[in-house]
Amino acid sequence: MSAQLTLVLGGIASGKSAFAEGLVRQSGKPMIYLATAQPFDDEMTQKIARHRKARGPGWHTIEEPLALAQNLREIAPGQCVLLDCATLWLSNHLLAESDIEAETHALLAAFADCSSDLVVVSNEVGLAGVPENALARQFANAQGRLNKSIAARASRVILVTAGLPLTLKGPVA
Amino acid sequence: MSAQLTLVLGGIASGKSAFAEGLVRQSGKPMIYLATAQPFDDEMTQKIARHRKARGPGWHTIEEPLALAQNLREIAPGQCVLLDCATLWLSNHLLAESDIEAETHALLAAFADCSSDLVVVSNEVGLAGVPENALARQFANAQGRLNKSIAARASRVILVTAGLPLTLKGPVA
Amino acid sequence: MSAQLTLVLGGIASGKSAFAEGLVRQSGKPMIYLATAQPFDDEMTQKIARHRKARGPGWHTIEEPLALAQNLREIAPGQCVLLDCATLWLSNHLLAESDIEAETHALLAAFADCSSDLVVVSNEVGLAGVPENALARQFANAQGRLNKSIAARASRVILVTAGLPLTLKGPVA
Repeated sequence: MSAQLTLVLGGIASGKSAFAEGLVRQSGKPMIYLATAQPFDDEMTQKIARHRKARGPGWHTIEEPLALAQNLREIAPGQCVLLDCATLWLSNHLLAESDIEAETHALLAAFADCSSDLVVVSNEVGLAGVPENALARQFANAQGRLNKSIAARASRVILVTAGLPLTLKGPVA
Repeated sequence: MSAQLTLVLGGIASGKSAFAEGLVRQSGKPMIYLATAQPFDDEMTQKIARHRKARGPGWHTIEEPLALAQNLREIAPGQCVLLDCATLWLSNHLLAESDIEAETHALLAAFADCSSDLVVVSNEVGLAGVPENALARQFANAQGRLNKSIAARASRVILVTAGLPLTLKGPVA
Repeated sequence: MSAQLTLVLGGIASGKSAFAEGLVRQSGKPMIYLATAQPFDDEMTQKIARHRKARGPGWHTIEEPLALAQNLREIAPGQCVLLDCATLWLSNHLLAESDIEAETHALLAAFADCSSDLVVVSNEVGLAGVPENALARQFANAQGRLNKSIAARASRVILVTAGLPLTLKGPVA
């Protein structure tokens, strides 16, 4: 049986991470937390600490801001991986001036080859009109394309609003 | 029988207020409009007048930008209260540099103790990525947390888009 | 039998145009693409070329940034029109300092009189809080009102997120 790919979408402080963590916990499999956040300032350090506390014990944590594909290829089968989140990964690559198309291609290939279940958290960012700032516009477009690509491959896509899940694809919980 | 708490979420000009007013009207109970908007400029004054006209007669209006918990505790049982909206209340408290956590705690306690039905209107504000501006970021996070807290306690949560309701929690209308 | 009006809502790069094109293709009727975009810079020129390529052959294209009502009145019956998109039309009129209420009234009247099916693409733009900038605020309000007006007249309204449709009104696909 092949591994499952689930995409959990949501806005800022929507409860998407907590919901995704619940899915991983329910899997009953060994839990891996693949974290893309970097503690580059106080606000981020506090957010990371808050999320870690909320997650509780029982997670094996891997911190990786950029090279997700490589890390996913080293994960043993039969586990459940929480990737939190695709938005920071994308943002890190945009700031690093990476080739986004090539990076996305490599990431999606790693998803397809992964023999552990994957729950990917990502932000929905395009619901306030087209930004005037060119970089913000590039980011919104890249995030939209990335979300579409993951959603097309996922067996389940869930949008979280105010902590409440709405199933966009796959079996309703 | 305990009073009902309903949360109506939506974006700018999404029709959330009109939908929430419809819910209150359908309750058949005496209608109270708990308004958080302040006519501090022409645009707001006109918006308040427009909303009042759209609402029509039959409402008892209470205007209160900050002290919602205190006002809710003075409302007699068996009525139906439209709180419009939690977003302005939050924004007023942020500008007043209040202790948001304490204020939220007091508001949620007043919701729990209220023996009139409550329909709370709130904005969904986190669907355009993380703002660069620190205050905007603080606001988006606080609004997300507030919406999650109210949604967790509500028996019904409805997201309004282009005037159309989508039930996120509770019985589908 | 009267012609059908469908509204397809979504954010930036949400897949709303591709989904709407699919609906028109499934109609089996002669396909008209009523385009509001203008190639005023390189980014827009490339976007228009990319969309044209994605759409494929078989479309009769009309390019019109402003006078949609007039164009719709000249379309012969029994076809299926993709209007992409109402957001750019609105934005073009705001920049031209048109009377938005009068233009909207004329557009909605042309929708009602159209004897070809219509699929209208529009952006959902109000989900990031109230913009500080007055023009951005005016735009968000005007877009919200326009979306509500079209949704009220449509037999089907679909919100597209990450390429996935969610039916807000009408028969579920």
